[in-house]
Amino acid sequence: MRVITNELATKVGQQVHLEGWLHKKRLLGGLTFINLRDRGGIVQAVLKDKKEVDKLKGLQIGTVLALEGTLVSEERAPGGVELHDVTLEVLVPVTYEPPIELDKPLSHKPENLDTLFEHRAIGLRNLSEAKIFLIRSFLLRLIREFLYEHDFVEIQTPKLVANAAEGGAEVFKLDYFGKQASLAQSPQLYKQVMVGVFERVFEIGPAFRAEPSATTRHVSEVTMLDIEMAFIKDHDEVLNMLQDMLFFVLNKIWADKGEILNDLKATQPVLKDHFPRYSMSQIHELYGQANNQDMSNEVDLTPDEERWICEYAKTHDGCEAVFATDLPRSKMKFYHMAKDDRSAMSADLLFRGLELATVPVREHRYDQLVEQMKTAGIGVDDPAYKFYLQAFKHGLPMHGGCGFGIDRLVEKVIGLGNIKEAILFPRDINRLTP
Amino acid sequence: MRVITNELATKVGQQVHLEGWLHKKRLLGGLTFINLRDRGGIVQAVLKDKKEVDKLKGLQIGTVLALEGTLVSEERAPGGVELHDVTLEVLVPVTYEPPIELDKPLSHKPENLDTLFEHRAIGLRNLSEAKIFLIRSFLLRLIREFLYEHDFVEIQTPKLVANAAEGGAEVFKLDYFGKQASLAQSPQLYKQVMVGVFERVFEIGPAFRAEPSATTRHVSEVTMLDIEMAFIKDHDEVLNMLQDMLFFVLNKIWADKGEILNDLKATQPVLKDHFPRYSMSQIHELYGQANNQDMSNEVDLTPDEERWICEYAKTHDGCEAVFATDLPRSKMKFYHMAKDDRSAMSADLLFRGLELATVPVREHRYDQLVEQMKTAGIGVDDPAYKFYLQAFKHGLPMHGGCGFGIDRLVEKVIGLGNIKEAILFPRDINRLTP
Repeated sequence: MRVITNELATKVGQQVHLEGWLHKKRLLGGLTFINLRDRGGIVQAVLKDKKEVDKLKGLQIGTVLALEGTLVSEERAPGGVELHDVTLEVLVPVTYEPPIELDKPLSHKPENLDTLFEHRAIGLRNLSEAKIFLIRSFLLRLIREFLYEHDFVEIQTPKLVANAAEGGAEVFKLDYFGKQASLAQSPQLYKQVMVGVFERVFEIGPAFRAEPSATTRHVSEVTMLDIEMAFIKDHDEVLNMLQDMLFFVLNKIWADKGEILNDLKATQPVLKDHFPRYSMSQIHELYGQANNQDMSNEVDLTPDEERWICEYAKTHDGCEAVFATDLPRSKMKFYHMAKDDRSAMSADLLFRGLELATVPVREHRYDQLVEQMKTAGIGVDDPAYKFYLQAFKHGLPMHGGCGFGIDRLVEKVIGLGNIKEAILFPRDINRLTP
Repeated sequence: MRVITNELATKVGQQVHLEGWLHKKRLLGGLTFINLRDRGGIVQAVLKDKKEVDKLKGLQIGTVLALEGTLVSEERAPGGVELHDVTLEVLVPVTYEPPIELDKPLSHKPENLDTLFEHRAIGLRNLSEAKIFLIRSFLLRLIREFLYEHDFVEIQTPKLVANAAEGGAEVFKLDYFGKQASLAQSPQLYKQVMVGVFERVFEIGPAFRAEPSATTRHVSEVTMLDIEMAFIKDHDEVLNMLQDMLFFVLNKIWADKGEILNDLKATQPVLKDHFPRYSMSQIHELYGQANNQDMSNEVDLTPDEERWICEYAKTHDGCEAVFATDLPRSKMKFYHMAKDDRSAMSADLLFRGLELATVPVREHRYDQLVEQMKTAGIGVDDPAYKFYLQAFKHGLPMHGGCGFGIDRLVEKVIGLGNIKEAILFPRDINRLTP
């Protein structure tokens, strides 16, 4: 019966059977020490018997092994235990040398990222690398836990759509049995329609952006958390829901997975249960004063302001997450609700200097929405929008929500430098493999 | 403070505030009865006061309302309660007549499916329709619960890939910044690579098939559950995991959501905790005997045999789920493991006459895999396969898994006639909207 390495602490003195990958091998004082990796972690084994050592002759890191032995306490070994009196069986021999060194953390320097992704299939076997994606998986699990608890229904909406231009970004186009289709850049239209059914819905899935950008913030395929909730009275209700979700998720992941986060050298975020809210004009003013700059001509927040207000909120309010509210009306999407002539009922959720989500109230009044579509130059008779308008024509209550970047969240929770490092197999303007 | 209709049972005698959609309106004995729909269900309200009745003048089903009133016990009303002494506020007026009748179950007859999808944005507000997707959401939640419990890590792999031809089906192609990309028809290659990292992985996400088929089984965008597990000793370990998952999920959904399933007229499946397993040649023989037909020239199972063996297993073994094992080697994918000259180490999971998943052991030996790729006519130097082969070159243990059709599961659990009815906004050769 196979035992996983994270179950070993309770098995000292026992005979155990382990299976995993040869992760490291070294000679020390005439003895062969090997590290075996499995899904639970690493265990060290000492091979004394020449017959056992010979079985590894010519074999490389990655070789799949079964080990039988006695587990003894050993402070200096990983996990505090060591396998002695080992019998070894080679399950899958590997004779090729690994293309990269797996035993120490891989370089994430900007100039080394291409190498990181080139050898991704093997590099992810590095424990540090794998831990990033354990955290990612756990973050998504906690997000779902929170949303289920708050009566949200998870939906799946199509990624092949007739027209994906709702968000303004560039879209991928393809031939769909003789028609032109686009890849959805968000489930925007569909999730709004679905609040007419379930009031509260969410989707976690891929979204596609054909922007030819090559920054640390852009990839062409992202994982988005899309949330939408109806029967709200004001913008704050939506902000509060998102704030409560992030507060729950970040506290819980540190409580449950603090050890992994520490291994990754992540810093526990400073948070309050009420995230500070600054209007965009307040931010322009505060930033302008602090940096002796005139921001009065800026319409949107600059990336530098985004970073600055997060630092400011951390010091001033004791919270690394902050809402920048009252975003400019001139940048408003056609499906957002205006607050007044200057502002939209919309906010950015900023965390550690990066925008994680835009959080608006939607325009739910049919006639007003039609006006805004016309102003945006969208044909209200376009068959691609027919189902969308139908939902409003037949009654949608006030609602709001957000598109929340999961990759960006992972990046900022762990403290990575580039969104790509938070994605298993990232896609950018130059990268379509692996 | 708003109360949701499914919380009303405990509030009889109290003054409550409700918000939702006008779902039905009728005059009876000089009184106006309205049904209000919210995310919890339906509540009936009686309007006596002419002033309140007049507020609804000219307004249609779908109008968004707030109701204040006193909750009284009323056996004949939905949920056993009724709202009296009602004050009504119109939150969002609707003046357009609904395009379809929402108060009785919509027709799912094959000839009416186009109408069903044409008005999808409104039709989903029909309670029966919405319940299909509550069940769908809950099935996915239970699947995740089982897989987390069994140490599987959830992953997200790219849908934009350099070459998606691994599965044999036709793929959608698109221009990707000047390169040709395909839409992934499954995460096959990526999930296999990932067992080298986490041993057990799963993904739930969209998969794309450009097959120009127009059957009750085919859509061009499906939701797939992809599972992969390593360090198996034999094929049965994979079959057992899938069997245990389905057994858990189906029992739990009937235990927890039996009322909704009954409303949908779903039939509780007859299941054993060990699903019967018949080899393909056994099925040919049994079917041939029972139907007095010579099946000796059939390579694969026919759709009729799939239906028949499920009926047979239900009667003979008391189980509506069955594995058809030892699928023909001639139909084997290059990444499957052969069992012998005639058979692959592969099985189909059949449920109520439909294949839900193909469940093979993978070929994990590098040299053998390279041979099988060559035989399949795949260039082993194709850069699209480089990362995949790299994982094997550097050691992958024996592993297996499946691609499991979520839409088909929903279809068969509820007893729908067409896969499209299990999808919010289905995509087929003729349908790209809504």
